[in-house]
Amino acid sequence: MIGMARYLAVDLGATKTRIALCSQDRILDKIVFPTPKTGDNTTIAESIVVKAREKWSSILDSVEAVGVASIGPLDLRRGVIVKPPNLLFNEVKLLEPLERILGKRVYVVNDAVAAAWGEKHFGSGRSFENLLYVTLSTGVGGGVIVNNHLLLGKQGNAHEIGHIVVDYNSELKCGCGGYGHWEAYAGGRNLPRVARWLLERNPGLASGSLLAKRILIGEQVTSIDIFTLYRSNDPLALEVVKQFIKATGAGLASAINSYDPEVVIIGGGVFINNIDILLEPIKREAERNIVTTPPLIQPTTLGDDVGLYGALTLAIEPPEELLKLQSSIATR
Amino acid sequence: MIGMARYLAVDLGATKTRIALCSQDRILDKIVFPTPKTGDNTTIAESIVVKAREKWSSILDSVEAVGVASIGPLDLRRGVIVKPPNLLFNEVKLLEPLERILGKRVYVVNDAVAAAWGEKHFGSGRSFENLLYVTLSTGVGGGVIVNNHLLLGKQGNAHEIGHIVVDYNSELKCGCGGYGHWEAYAGGRNLPRVARWLLERNPGLASGSLLAKRILIGEQVTSIDIFTLYRSNDPLALEVVKQFIKATGAGLASAINSYDPEVVIIGGGVFINNIDILLEPIKREAERNIVTTPPLIQPTTLGDDVGLYGALTLAIEPPEELLKLQSSIATR
Repeated sequence: MIGMARYLAVDLGATKTRIALCSQDRILDKIVFPTPKTGDNTTIAESIVVKAREKWSSILDSVEAVGVASIGPLDLRRGVIVKPPNLLFNEVKLLEPLERILGKRVYVVNDAVAAAWGEKHFGSGRSFENLLYVTLSTGVGGGVIVNNHLLLGKQGNAHEIGHIVVDYNSELKCGCGGYGHWEAYAGGRNLPRVARWLLERNPGLASGSLLAKRILIGEQVTSIDIFTLYRSNDPLALEVVKQFIKATGAGLASAINSYDPEVVIIGGGVFINNIDILLEPIKREAERNIVTTPPLIQPTTLGDDVGLYGALTLAIEPPEELLKLQSSIATR
Repeated sequence: MIGMARYLAVDLGATKTRIALCSQDRILDKIVFPTPKTGDNTTIAESIVVKAREKWSSILDSVEAVGVASIGPLDLRRGVIVKPPNLLFNEVKLLEPLERILGKRVYVVNDAVAAAWGEKHFGSGRSFENLLYVTLSTGVGGGVIVNNHLLLGKQGNAHEIGHIVVDYNSELKCGCGGYGHWEAYAGGRNLPRVARWLLERNPGLASGSLLAKRILIGEQVTSIDIFTLYRSNDPLALEVVKQFIKATGAGLASAINSYDPEVVIIGGGVFINNIDILLEPIKREAERNIVTTPPLIQPTTLGDDVGLYGALTLAIEPPEELLKLQSSIATR
């Protein structure tokens, strides 16, 4: 194995950070650790290097390049997370400190964008030139490849499909401050708020609902609780999931009409854990509103490793558009 | 002038066809004639050649290439209009007969896509790498350039932004068969239907409304009538335009979140004739729901010639993605 190219792949999440040592075609070894919550704006980058050195010591010096799939919002030109909503730092520097400490080329993109790039090279997107990756997780995000180009846009945010407005009259507020966005209805972290909102508009949903009871006594509920209660036919949980499916069908159709993909690959914890409930109804809802030739719509086959495979692909084959966007970085 | 390159630009509309003889940097001469309504699937292509030969005879043989901005829906691979809703033909062949008769390279794209390409080269999109062109006309359409690439998608339909779902609970049907689409609320041809739909849901709007009166006695009304009545404070016309603006703000925000453009250029007859009513409210509505850095939003400066400039740009500098899509054409 000596002499074969090695790459470092990083999947930086709000809760956990995953790092993998990889060859050109697979993950060889990986570690998972809690993402640091305290420190300064280079603490996360430093902890990645420390953990990787502990585990792989000398091999690390010989890696060809490093790919990072990160939570957002990113300033892609600088490779920095700007005001991450789930972390305490105002800014998390990734590109500059990682390049400086490791002495390697580092490529950073949003996790869903990396996932799209990874699906094209390692997943079920391999034979397609037009691909949409959608993550239904704590939030709703996407990554898009059109005519073989990774879509980035002026600042690398040409994939904010979670903020497609699916109801322009809605009073349901999104975390971003807008109203009626896809993510407001379907982001895992928002589902308890959707439940409260539906309950206010239709108090009758409380009848026979354990979910309503728990909400009304002020108990914390999670998206996992809501899907569990859905499976026991809780009337409020049924309604939350119904709106999730309708909003997701609309958002997905809008994205498909806007990108004309051959294949849509869906991942993210909320989706993966509820494929039996979500996949077919979402497809049906979306297909009613698609005007292009309908694409294939299927779950990711890369599971939890989709972010790492995305990061690996970034390191092996950095997208031309990213190189252009990041070419102005001072350290290069 | 002899020895300078010449190009033929065609803007094929449902009602009128415009043809221009052009140099590398401007329209030199143009003709406008009614688009043929009868004949067979090559009649339109033949009429373009006949009209151009009548007008420019021998110069025509020396043109470098031909660009066509056409109504859709297009099968971009074949350069054919498929089941045009406003023409009597089942299929209108453009690319093959034009190339055969003229003996020149011909490039065909959707009119809004051509407009985006034209804005980038001749209009206010010149200094931008990320541009969204939106047409608010009989229908709602778009053309998109991301990181300098013209967005086409698997069949050249990565711009069907008129079919973004702006209200997933809506019972307002779109011409495509879907519900709650941006175009259902804002396509010029749909505004009379929106007026009837609003009137059914809220009969009180009839009070003091000439528009309602005309609709209730079965008179035909047009989008022009509706905007005229808006200007005289007709209550139903006010409500139609209010929904137009809200739906357009939502659709535009969704498109901006999905493409991350630096500039949005808006054209189309419905918009151009009502800039004073529409521009600022649409910007305000959109900006509430944009999560990326807000782009410039401005009217086209190319007026009626935006389609011809788009066609000219196609002929001078055919987009790389189009060459790939159309490279399989048998005649080449």
